[in-house]
Amino acid sequence: MKIENPNPIQWRFSERAQQLQSSFIREILKITQQPEIISFAGGLPSPATFPVEEMKAAFDKVLSTTGKTALQYGPTDGYMPLRQWIADSLSKDGAKIVPEQVLMVSGSQQALDLLGKVLIDEGSRVLVETPSYLGALQAFSVYRPEFTSVATDDDGLVPASIEPVAQGARLLYSLPNFQNPTGRTLSIARRQELVETCARLGLPLIEDDPYGALSYKGEPLPKMVAMNPDGVIYMGSFSKVLTPGIRLGYVVAPLPLVRRLELAKQAADLHTAQLTQMVVHEVIKDGFLDRHIPTIRELYGNQCQAMLDAMAEHFPAGATWTKPQGGMFIWVTLPKHINAMELLDEAIKHKVAFVPGAPFYANEPEAHTLRLSFVTVPPERIRQGIAILGKLIAARM
Amino acid sequence: MKIENPNPIQWRFSERAQQLQSSFIREILKITQQPEIISFAGGLPSPATFPVEEMKAAFDKVLSTTGKTALQYGPTDGYMPLRQWIADSLSKDGAKIVPEQVLMVSGSQQALDLLGKVLIDEGSRVLVETPSYLGALQAFSVYRPEFTSVATDDDGLVPASIEPVAQGARLLYSLPNFQNPTGRTLSIARRQELVETCARLGLPLIEDDPYGALSYKGEPLPKMVAMNPDGVIYMGSFSKVLTPGIRLGYVVAPLPLVRRLELAKQAADLHTAQLTQMVVHEVIKDGFLDRHIPTIRELYGNQCQAMLDAMAEHFPAGATWTKPQGGMFIWVTLPKHINAMELLDEAIKHKVAFVPGAPFYANEPEAHTLRLSFVTVPPERIRQGIAILGKLIAARM
Repeated sequence: MKIENPNPIQWRFSERAQQLQSSFIREILKITQQPEIISFAGGLPSPATFPVEEMKAAFDKVLSTTGKTALQYGPTDGYMPLRQWIADSLSKDGAKIVPEQVLMVSGSQQALDLLGKVLIDEGSRVLVETPSYLGALQAFSVYRPEFTSVATDDDGLVPASIEPVAQGARLLYSLPNFQNPTGRTLSIARRQELVETCARLGLPLIEDDPYGALSYKGEPLPKMVAMNPDGVIYMGSFSKVLTPGIRLGYVVAPLPLVRRLELAKQAADLHTAQLTQMVVHEVIKDGFLDRHIPTIRELYGNQCQAMLDAMAEHFPAGATWTKPQGGMFIWVTLPKHINAMELLDEAIKHKVAFVPGAPFYANEPEAHTLRLSFVTVPPERIRQGIAILGKLIAARM
Repeated sequence: MKIENPNPIQWRFSERAQQLQSSFIREILKITQQPEIISFAGGLPSPATFPVEEMKAAFDKVLSTTGKTALQYGPTDGYMPLRQWIADSLSKDGAKIVPEQVLMVSGSQQALDLLGKVLIDEGSRVLVETPSYLGALQAFSVYRPEFTSVATDDDGLVPASIEPVAQGARLLYSLPNFQNPTGRTLSIARRQELVETCARLGLPLIEDDPYGALSYKGEPLPKMVAMNPDGVIYMGSFSKVLTPGIRLGYVVAPLPLVRRLELAKQAADLHTAQLTQMVVHEVIKDGFLDRHIPTIRELYGNQCQAMLDAMAEHFPAGATWTKPQGGMFIWVTLPKHINAMELLDEAIKHKVAFVPGAPFYANEPEAHTLRLSFVTVPPERIRQGIAILGKLIAARM
């Protein structure tokens, strides 16, 4: 039945597709997944934290009691009891978030894509932190914005740097808690100032919060969405507190925006798996996360401390790094003459891997930075890997 | 902590977002889901066909044996054993499809979005059938193409109508088996001619095939992708043969295109749920679909026949309709002076619903057409509903 001598197609891709690039991190991960490599490159949560038994019991219960509904097409905006749970949990601090503001998505990466789709035209100005989350840069890039990087320091994003570049900007993307890649946290005073600045300028502020619950000590800082629910777009995820492989996240936005996002979602994939939403609701509805999250915090906190201790011992003077209060990452700044990409090549030869920092910059990459993750590596291996890395850095000093 | 007197945001949406519209069908479904309404409006498969017990057993097995892997982030292109299964099943007729050509997606609606993203620029010409699947029009519309409708008749799309409008076209979207909305099937001779025409013109041909397995009698017709794997993009789905609520589909494309689609997928939602893919593979790997699909065919075939019989009895002369050999839909053409939207308003008052045909046209809607689905309505209710509808149509003759 095959046809004879077909012309080979000369593929003509859209302009946006011509500039699509694979995530550099995903490429590195392919190289570094061999078991003999001590990899600090991952952004993956530790599988030790996945509540397999609870998930299994919930799948069994949902399929046994409401299987036909769970397996049927569902509403685009999501499973109402789960949206209600999310709205309630975000309203605890006195903010008033209603479930109609919550749109369930297929992992919070999809929220980034939908926000880009709905808010960004070609050439639109988009404000991002310096450095910023790579997945956000990748998602927004598809819509061909002009990125403007705003200043950050050890307290996170510098609100005073917004106004000079806010003219015509479509959004400001921020990751205030234990930022990916730096591990930095935006201080309370800065949060207030940032929310006020954006509200005054009429600038939509995205608060991406995948790691917010993972504070090692004390309670998480107040959320910006609670300070101004009419101007802040909040993104949450079950990937870091439950499991990522089910692809479940959510975006909470003012009603005019969330309705547009819902329409974009309908065109993009109709809706997020109904079964998954019902199962997650079943797992978390009676307070499971309140018991579960402290175990993740303890595991990650211990491994973070092991890495910080090893770095203090083995990294040479001239290298500096962040001291995260939560989350999954430490950010290292080397002397300017050391190129982290070259360091990586050598490190891999010595069976250690990390992620060079340059891809996290929307503009003017700083090639002497790198990101380390400690969450999937046991303390003993952390010490070994950091000792090796310290030697390689020292040799380049 | 709330800030004082924030300015309300004047939302500025992207140009593509300003024209986003909700699916008319989804809007109708909201109205017609009251149990007292006999609804032929649905496009949902019958929950009676969902293999709840098999799914439950598979979730239990996958989580028990490989839970940590199933719940972790997975590769963007998908779960290899499932991609291999799909490639093998498409290669049965002698075509050579390799698993590297298969990209798993979060329901085949996502394949439409990714294809639009990667192939369509603003103003690009896109060829679609007359009428065409509404979800495809909706997905492509986001990328603002110029749609050109190509002619169809009872044998499906007319290949000779392609060449005059192919100049500069980015793709031709077709649904050859039991088309949504018409229930028509593209004849074998037409398939061959269509594949040859597109190959000669260098025009990418999309073969969307959600219903192909649901033939009531005899075997499905040969797939176009098997005739020219280098020029045809095949889209498949587990929604109609297994269950839609898990959101799992796939696209099979020539390698240069599938790599771009994978990059677009990575930016859109990283990957499709790993657990879902592993569970579906577990359910189907030993021939389950060969036993299961015949039961769906029989159920739908009987209900289709019940509807056709009732239409022959109750619909007045002057109305014509398709006689599907499979799938989920019958397409009705009324005399030109009868507006199906007005008919729907009246039908709902009499507790019967259907979908007017106009939204399925990319250009020049034919307002005297409508779509009926029989799959979720028992035969007795089908007869009642068709009798009522027949009377309402007769009254307008």
